[in-house]
Parts: sequence; structure tokens; C-alpha cells
Amino acid sequence: MNRLVPFAMVLLASFSTAYADEGMWTLNGFPSDRVAKTYGFRPDQAWLTHVRQASVRLAQGCSGSFVSPDGLVMTNHHCAHRCIEQLSTLAKDLDKNGFYAKSRAEEPKCPELEVNQLIDIRDVSDTVHGATKGLDGKAFHDAQKAITSKLEAECQTSDSLRCEVVTLFHGGRYDLYTYRRYQEVRLVFAPEFAVAFFGGDPDNFMFPRYDLDVSFVRVYQDGKPAHINDYFTFSPVAPKSGDLTFVSGHPGRTAREQTTTELAYQRDFALVDRLIAYAELRGVLTEYQHRGAEQKRHSTAMLFGVENSIKAMAGMLDSLRDHAFFASKVREEEAFKAKLAKGDNAKANLEAFAAIGRAEDALTAIRVPLRYLEYGEGFGGKLFSIARMLLRGPVEREKANAVRLEEFADAALPQLTQSLFSPAPIYPELETLRLSHSFTKLREVLGADDPIVKKVLGQASPDELAEKLVKGTALASVAERRRLWDGGRAVVDASTDPMIALARLIDDDARAVRKKSEEEIDAVVKKNEELLAKARFDIYGTSVYPDATFSLRLSYGQVKGWDEGARHIEPLTTFAGAFARATGRDPFALPASWLSAQQKIDPATVFDIATTNDIIGGNSGSPVVNKNGEAVGLIFDGNIWSLGGDYGFDESKNRAVAVSTAAIFAALKKIYGADRIAAELVPAKPATK
Amino acid sequence: MNRLVPFAMVLLASFSTAYADEGMWTLNGFPSDRVAKTYGFRPDQAWLTHVRQASVRLAQGCSGSFVSPDGLVMTNHHCAHRCIEQLSTLAKDLDKNGFYAKSRAEEPKCPELEVNQLIDIRDVSDTVHGATKGLDGKAFHDAQKAITSKLEAECQTSDSLRCEVVTLFHGGRYDLYTYRRYQEVRLVFAPEFAVAFFGGDPDNFMFPRYDLDVSFVRVYQDGKPAHINDYFTFSPVAPKSGDLTFVSGHPGRTAREQTTTELAYQRDFALVDRLIAYAELRGVLTEYQHRGAEQKRHSTAMLFGVENSIKAMAGMLDSLRDHAFFASKVREEEAFKAKLAKGDNAKANLEAFAAIGRAEDALTAIRVPLRYLEYGEGFGGKLFSIARMLLRGPVEREKANAVRLEEFADAALPQLTQSLFSPAPIYPELETLRLSHSFTKLREVLGADDPIVKKVLGQASPDELAEKLVKGTALASVAERRRLWDGGRAVVDASTDPMIALARLIDDDARAVRKKSEEEIDAVVKKNEELLAKARFDIYGTSVYPDATFSLRLSYGQVKGWDEGARHIEPLTTFAGAFARATGRDPFALPASWLSAQQKIDPATVFDIATTNDIIGGNSGSPVVNKNGEAVGLIFDGNIWSLGGDYGFDESKNRAVAVSTAAIFAALKKIYGADRIAAELVPAKPATK
Repeated sequence: MNRLVPFAMVLLASFSTAYADEGMWTLNGFPSDRVAKTYGFRPDQAWLTHVRQASVRLAQGCSGSFVSPDGLVMTNHHCAHRCIEQLSTLAKDLDKNGFYAKSRAEEPKCPELEVNQLIDIRDVSDTVHGATKGLDGKAFHDAQKAITSKLEAECQTSDSLRCEVVTLFHGGRYDLYTYRRYQEVRLVFAPEFAVAFFGGDPDNFMFPRYDLDVSFVRVYQDGKPAHINDYFTFSPVAPKSGDLTFVSGHPGRTAREQTTTELAYQRDFALVDRLIAYAELRGVLTEYQHRGAEQKRHSTAMLFGVENSIKAMAGMLDSLRDHAFFASKVREEEAFKAKLAKGDNAKANLEAFAAIGRAEDALTAIRVPLRYLEYGEGFGGKLFSIARMLLRGPVEREKANAVRLEEFADAALPQLTQSLFSPAPIYPELETLRLSHSFTKLREVLGADDPIVKKVLGQASPDELAEKLVKGTALASVAERRRLWDGGRAVVDASTDPMIALARLIDDDARAVRKKSEEEIDAVVKKNEELLAKARFDIYGTSVYPDATFSLRLSYGQVKGWDEGARHIEPLTTFAGAFARATGRDPFALPASWLSAQQKIDPATVFDIATTNDIIGGNSGSPVVNKNGEAVGLIFDGNIWSLGGDYGFDESKNRAVAVSTAAIFAALKKIYGADRIAAELVPAKPATK
Repeated sequence: MNRLVPFAMVLLASFSTAYADEGMWTLNGFPSDRVAKTYGFRPDQAWLTHVRQASVRLAQGCSGSFVSPDGLVMTNHHCAHRCIEQLSTLAKDLDKNGFYAKSRAEEPKCPELEVNQLIDIRDVSDTVHGATKGLDGKAFHDAQKAITSKLEAECQTSDSLRCEVVTLFHGGRYDLYTYRRYQEVRLVFAPEFAVAFFGGDPDNFMFPRYDLDVSFVRVYQDGKPAHINDYFTFSPVAPKSGDLTFVSGHPGRTAREQTTTELAYQRDFALVDRLIAYAELRGVLTEYQHRGAEQKRHSTAMLFGVENSIKAMAGMLDSLRDHAFFASKVREEEAFKAKLAKGDNAKANLEAFAAIGRAEDALTAIRVPLRYLEYGEGFGGKLFSIARMLLRGPVEREKANAVRLEEFADAALPQLTQSLFSPAPIYPELETLRLSHSFTKLREVLGADDPIVKKVLGQASPDELAEKLVKGTALASVAERRRLWDGGRAVVDASTDPMIALARLIDDDARAVRKKSEEEIDAVVKKNEELLAKARFDIYGTSVYPDATFSLRLSYGQVKGWDEGARHIEPLTTFAGAFARATGRDPFALPASWLSAQQKIDPATVFDIATTNDIIGGNSGSPVVNKNGEAVGLIFDGNIWSLGGDYGFDESKNRAVAVSTAAIFAALKKIYGADRIAAELVPAKPATK
């Protein structure tokens, strides 16, 4: 399979009514009738509520599910990878060797994981639309931010709740989501990286596939495992081809409703710029891994993340630069415009396209300083990011909630402080590398004569400055971070920590470009997307699904293969296939635990599964659920055709990829001897069948 | 200056008559009248012939000029960089420390440089057009190749000549160029890399600029310096703002006459794919340089080449992804099509656009295997490239000249064998790195299950295979290469050298995709571009310049600054400016020789110069000539706006960048004590003035 083959997507009418298995549906807008019609099963309200409450979000960007009444959460290995690496040392490498807590007492805390369970959804569209009615630009931005912060703050009555105003249909609708927030999350089980990510980057987004990309964590409350009412019964039996499957999770972002000027910006600038930047970073990290075993260890999760992003973005780019596909998007938009031209408010609606186009041009002009000064590319690594949080913290916290930078709003502070006070190790050598690399890039993109570059670098070289900063800062110490955070503005102002001094040096410049982007670009895009969304409802009705926004969605589909040219790809793989694919060389080397257990495993056990569910990045860790509400699989990837899913869904080829719970169960029992967890998942007397 | 700012190019009618200083003119089609009208000087035939014969091409991709009767050639440091590196060791590092041969006897041979002097031009359009009349696809390709090889072989009566059928106006015209070929080229002088490339990648394509990017080499014949009749008098005096300047050199490639589907292919695929690939390689090499001093030394020229390509391609991409600029190209093409629709052969001419479009789609589909299997990206490094030459050599040389792969045609063999038998050192560690990296990429782009990937890698990892091949091959030995080349097919067939075995393993696949691209894509594009070129002559006349094709061109212009927004950039810099810019840190560290000579140098000496001459990559090393035919400068770069020059010329901002001969002369005398060369350049009694 060749990911660079042009993306031959079936031409879609993405904002007309979805058909077949397409759709990332909200839990309060799920098309149960349509599922009943196609698959003969009608999810009722109780079924949907149960699924919603048994599903969780990992706030750092993944999905998961409760699989026991004692707070056990199933997610992907790659979703807990950072935690696994943070709990490791070269001598005790959980990533390489895997991890299994033999008792609850031995479950260690993940420094930076937060788990969210969606417990309520409320439509607040009228309130939000009312607050911004008739406003533009900065006024629109300020008003929307004020009403959003107010709604969230009123809802979030304690740190154990997390409230978010969720944008749906690009502002056609706003819902207030209330989550229960769990910040005490402990690691329970993880297999070796070698089998969690068997096939590595070459097999990523490919199928047939043989990955045990699973980990289990447990949410605690007040030091004890949280008691969970809604959880998925874990099925030790694999689904069959043709079985109906639901996927409940948190797709991060799609752009199926975006205008063609927004898509052209993605194609020509956003994706290309990031692919080039990531490719260089990938090269640096790949070669950095040759410095030694410890450097290899502590940079693996980061390299994996970079490679995963590259492959995903390359797939997205391939779909957008497919001239036939892009032309279909243009035609679709022309058809929409033709309808608008005949409707009410024709002039205002058509002007919305032009306004969005102008905003995209403005974004093109400031995208480089925006990315490099405000969004981290010019100042890489954790230490700088900590310094900025500490510098901005007191300034923002003195402001009214409604006018703060969004990451300092009351509703956001629990997540920010979890990250700020994380005891996860910081590696000076890697920090120096990243900072030096990003200074070099900053100088490259802004130019050596740029005043900001001059004040940052002075006479120093990037290497020299990076080394000096990392050696000179005290921010690796969590206690020092607490002292500064708790001390407030006077203490931070008095700080001469060189990393804080650097953050201070560029803060005005960074804030200025962010302000410009929020008030003059984002606000314009939001306002005009809202207009178009409402016009779209008028024309196409409201029985459609909204673009993904990292909020809970449910998709339906079935276990099903697909045709790759003349070749049919079967939807199920087996343990036997994994052993056949192993070469003994990374990334195709199975771990010793597998090799020594080979005789004990049934080679016919279903390993990985392809389904027609419509998913996207962020769905990693989502449970695959059958109609009985049992977990039968764990999403960890899509196939190569799923990468065009940002822009449309082609049911003939787009597949979600999961590891079967049957494989997980067999591995726990036969390979890892993880009887404690196996018994928790499938109690002696199972709950169903 | 920010190279990522959208390229605001003045809208050009690039295939209507050129105006102002635009144009890379052939020496037999130079618009002397126009120059006379604008600048009051009319180059006559004698002047033009002298300039043609005093100009040289470096066959590996640069320009240069004769500057003494004894074969002394002035070119850029970066054009001789490979030679300088090849002659260096860690202990005797000519790149770092500079080089000056105190006597002719001490001038060392450059292993891989070839210098060409253009001595004759003959129009062969009728012959070439006649041979392909009425043909298509493979038949067109075969006929054109046959007539080209025939013309070149008949012309090239000895290895000291080099004959090339040069394509002009995309086939509207074909000229047969006869060069005198010099393969014995010795290094005479080179400054330290630190001042040759002062400012490094950050200042590359920027201005104001302070680079002494010069080297001198000497061409020999039969072991003695070649005697040269036509050479440029070297002026120790810098030109002034407003002075008329000519640049005579070999611009590599422009695409100002290409169709918009060809440009869209460049924008969406060719440039983006290569930028991503180069960015990753850059990251790998940057970090490889940390392995140690020797690794840093032997990878510097390569890293510099990669970075230079990245910056150049990024500028090209910026111009093509400027939506306003691209729209202007579309409008221009629409206007041309409207004219064609009213002319003779309207249907055939308009169909040519569609045919080119289909060929670009076909190219999109095979571009990945084409690049990775045939054009080196999947098999990096010198050793593989040598293995392939050795493998293909006997097979190709047994064929008739007209049907060989073009690099094995009789006319091409001298350059191929110079490279094949080059005694330049090969660094196993770097070879292993490159090969491993390219195997990893090959597996990534074709997929781990691709049959070619499987037969190449087998069970091995890329690292493992690369190491085994580099350790196992004997091709680092020039004697072994000679033995295989001279032995012919039987000897090569019998070889079990692992690198040759690898080349053999993929040869059928690589040849197949090349054949497809030549016969089904290139031939279609060439044939239809020819059609359009002829139609263009009918409409716009023939007093235009052709797109660059690495053949000799002359441009005219003047020393002139430009406005960058509200800021005016002066066209001349001084030595004082260089000292002011120096930070002591690489790449802004002046070498010790400069620091210790600072007091001896007149700080007001003109260092670098910006002119309005229309140049492009390949012009590096071109002389800047005044109306008296004196060399007054040496092109080494363009400004950031010149990077859009592939697609059009904006005289308001596009500038060529040169080092003044005044600076070169002062440095030779005052800094390097290179009196022997200074006296050869400016004899005691100067030839002019």
C-alpha cells in the first residue's frame, strides 16, 4: 500500500445528509432510526446514556472507557506513552519492558494524565448567539469569550467538574458539556512498546496489522479507586466479519464543513509548513537517538509522536492535493452558494465566504510569527513552556475570568496546574537540543536581522544560548515552580531565572500576534462560519452530524474488509500473522515475552480488526462496542484511507483499526500472567453471557 | 526580511516580450538594441563573442570565467566546495583554513571538476523537428533521442570537446552547442569557509551581505596550464550604484513558460515532496555533525548543499502558493488560449494543454517509485551510485549510441567516467548513514509489504543492511572500479560485490519506471510544449528569451538597491559592515586571518553588490562584467525575491548578489598575501585603463 498514491476519494456531499456508515454523531443527536434501518438494532436512550457515561476522554488528547466498577480505564498504549516514559529510567524501563502492577498498592501515579467523564449536555445556543448578535471582530471575540467563560465558570462548581462550551456545526449550535474530572490516574498495565507498536512507523496507518496497543490505568478519588456505575462489560470474544460495531470517543478535529479557502490554506500553508518543520525535527531526533541508550529511551515517545503526526498530515495533504478531490469540494461549495443566492440574506451569506477568505489571507501573513512566537516553535521544550506559564500566571489571574487568555480561565486552571506541577522528569540534554533547534529555526524564519531574533540571541549562537538557559534555570524543580506560582506577581517580577527572563523578553511580541490572530482572524472566521452554519440548517436541515471538536461522538459501522485495487483486504488478523510478520529486528521484533509464550497462545485468536466506523485522530483509545454494550475492541488507528477523513468519508475504503478485546484478554492471561486484571475485566461469573 | 512573507510579485506577462532588465538571453539572440536604448551601450558581435569565450560552465552545476591567459578560472567557493572538501583531511582542513598554492607546482587536482567553454552554436531546429514530425509517445521519444545522440556524436570528435543539443523555448528551437572540455582542473585559492559563507544559512539569499564567496581554479591541458585567448580583465575597482552590469553564466532552469498544470504539479508535489525529504535529511545531518569533528568536517559541504536547496525551494514554493500570483499565471494562460482559439490549428494547440495535464497526472501517480528507485532517494550515497554505473555500463555500452540511457551516450561518457574514477575519499560512516536513511524512507513510502522493499531489506533492518553493504563492498577502491568497468559485462556479471548485487536486484524495477516516465510522460510533455512554443512564436514573435536550460545566457542590468516596504536597501556593502556584523560565533564568526588583518584593510572597500540582473541557480560563479568587458564582480547568490525568479521576474525587487572584484583583490593582497594570484589577475601594467 502506498500512502502517496493520490487519494481517490469518492466525491462526497459532506454537508448534505450523511449516508451509509458516515458520521461522528453527538450523543444527543444520534440517528438511531437510521441504524435500525440498516442494521436492525435501535439504540434507545438508556443504551446511549450508558455508553456516554462509560466513555471517557483523556484530556491530553485521547479517548478511553471504563471497564470495571473500580475505575479501571482501557486506553491505548500510545495514549499513556508519556506516562509510561515519565515513570521510567534507563535501569527500570517500563516502555521497553512493559509494566504490570501485581497489586493495587503497586499502581503508580501518572504525573500528567487527566480523565474526563461526560455527565451532562445542555444546549446554550441561544445564550451564546444572543451575546454576540450584531457584533464583529474584537467586539465579537470579547463578547463570545465573556459568555463562554461565564457559562463555564457558573457550571464548574468544583475542581472535580470540568465544563466546556462545545462548538458544533462551526457555531450553528453551542452545547455546554459537563464532565467529571479525574486527575489522580494510576498506571495498571502496559505491554512492551515493541508489541504495542509492532511494525512501528512503517506499519502505522497500515493494515493488516498486529498491534497490542493497549494500556490500563485506574482513576482514583481521595486515594481510593473511584467507584463507577457505568462501565463496559469486557468481552473476551472477538467480533466477526459483518458484526455491528459502535465506536464511542473523542474525534479531535475534522474539516468537512470548511470553505474551500480554508481548505486551500490547509493545503498550501498549514499542512506543508508543519510537515517541513516536523520532518526536520524527526531527522534531528532520529539521529539524536544514536547518542546513547538513555538518549534513545527518553526521546522515543517524542519521536513516535512526531512520526505519527507526519504520517497523519501527509495523508491529509494527499487528499487535499488530489486535484479531482479538491475540485469536488469546489463544486459542492458552488452548489451551496447557488442555493444561498436564491435564499434570504443572500448578500450577507455570500459575503461570509469572502470575509473568511480575507481572514485566511491575513492568517497567511502572520502565521510565521504566530507559530514561532506564541505557539512554541521558536521556543521548544518543557522548561520554556513552564517559564511562560509562570510569567503569565499572575498577570492573567489578576484579570477578570472573562478576559483572561483562555488557558488561564478558571475552568482551565486545574489542567494547567497539573501540567505545571508535574513531577515528570525533565532531560537537560533533550531540552538543550530542542531549544537550540527552535532558536535556529526562529532565526531562519524571521531572519537574523529581525529585532526579536536579535534581542533573543544577542551575540550568542543557538547552541550556546540553549545550553546557558538550561543550565541556568531552576525550573526543573517542582518546588521552585510552586514558589513562583504561589508567590504571585511580585515574586515572579523579581525572578532573574534566565528562562523566565527569556519568556518576559518576548512576551509583548507574542501576546501582540496572538491578540491579532484572535480578534482579527479567529473572530471573523467564527462569526462567518456561524452565519453559514445557520444558512446550511435552513437548506439541508439539522439531521446532520457536526465536524469533530474533541467532544464525545458515537459512530456506527461493521467489521468489514475492503478492496485495494484487485486485492481484497480481510478485516481480521490473528496472532499467527504477528509471528509470521516478525523479523526479529526493530520495529518488527516481537518481545521475548511473546516468543517464549508462543506455544501457549491459540494462533487463531483474532488480533486486530478493521471496521467501517467513521473516526479520526483523538478517537485513539475509544472502545468498540457491540449492540449488547460490551467492549469487543479498542480503536488505536485508522487505515491509510482514513487519513482523508478530515475532509470527507469514503465508506468503500476508510477503515477504523482496533485491537480485539479477545487478543487483549489472551495476552493478559497467557503472556503476561496478569490474572488480577484479567479477573477484574472478566469476573468468574461474567455480567453478560 | 522574512522569506515566508507571501511573494508579492508584479504580475507579469512572461511570454510576451520581456521589458526592463528581465531576460536570460542567448548569446546568439541578445537584444543589443534594447540595451543601447536603455543604457546607451550597444554590445557588438566582437564584444559578445569575447564574453561567450571568456565565460565557462562548471559541468557539475555552476558558472565561472577565465581571468588570465594561463587558464585561471574564477568561480565561487561554494562551486568548488566539494573539491575543497575532497582535498581535505581533519588534520589538513582546507575548508576550515582556506587554501593558497604558493606556486603553480603546488596546485592540487580537483577530482571531479569539469570546465566547459562554449566555442560554437549552431541551429539544428529543422533537423530535430524533422526527425520527430508526426510522432507521439515512445516513437517521439525514440526519434528525438536518436537524432540528438547522432548530432552530438558527430560533433564530438574528441573527448576534449563536449557537444550538446540544447532545448530552447521548450522545443521551439534546438541549438547544437560545442564546448571545449577541460577535465584537468586544479585548485589555486580558496578562503576560509567562515568568510566564504559568512552568515551561513541565516544570511543565505539575504542582503545586505558580506561573503567572500570566491575560489580560483586553473584548467590544465596535457599537464600544463591551458593557454586562453579570451579572458576577462580583472578590475580591482568596484562598480558604483547605477553602473551597467552584464552577467554571463549558466542559469539552470526556469519555468516561466510552463503551463499552469505543470506549475500546479511543482507547487503541490515536486517542491513539497522534496522540501519534506530534504528537511528530514537536514535534521539528520545537523545532528550527525555532533558525532565528532571529523564527521562534522566531512558532512559540511553536503549539509550546506541541502540547506541551500531547501531555502531556494522554499522561496519557489512561496511564489507558487501565493494565490494572487498563481491566479495571474492562470489569467495569462487563459489569454494565450483565447488567442490560440482564434488562430490556425486551434484544436491541436488547445489539446496540447490537456495532453500536458494528463501527463502531469501520470507523473503524479509514478513520482514516488521514480524518485526512490531510479533517482537515488531510496539508495543514497556514493557507493550505490558507483555500483549502478558499473552495473549498467557494460549493458549500455553494448547498445547503439542512439538507444542508450542518456548518461551512457558517447557524448556523456567523459563526465561519467570522471565521476566513476574519482579518487575523492568516501566516508564509510556517512555512506552508512545515508544508505540507512534512504532504506528507511524507501520502506516508508512504498510500504513494508511492497515486493521491492521486501526483496531489498529481507529480514534486515535499514541500519543493519546499510552497515553490511558498506563494510562488504570493495567499490571504495578506484582500482576495483576500473577493473569492473574495463572488464565489461562478463566481469560485472560475475561480481558478487554486495553493492553491485543490490543495484542488480532492483535494476529491472528502476529501469521500468524510468522507461515509463520517459516514453509516456516526458515525451508527451516535450511534444506538446514544442507545439505550444511554435504557436507562441506565431503570436508573440521570436524576439523573446527562452527558459533557462543550463546553457550560456547573458543578462543586463545595473547596480541598484530596492525598497523593502518603507526601508530602502542600498546595493553596496563594505568591509566595515562585515566586521560590524561579526559576533564571533559561527556562522557569524570572521576567520582569524580577517581579524588580524583588520587594520590593514580599507573599511570602505566595497564588499558585496546587488544588481538588477536576471539570474537563477546555476549562475553561481558568473562574472559580473562592465561595458569594457572587465570583470567587476562575481555572482554568488540572489536576494530573497530572486527565488520567485523561476516563475517570473519582478525588477522592483529581484536582485542578483555578487562579491566585488575589488573585495577579492583587497583580500588576496591584504589578508591572504596571495601576491602570485593578485599579480596574475592585475599585472603590473594592466591591460585596460
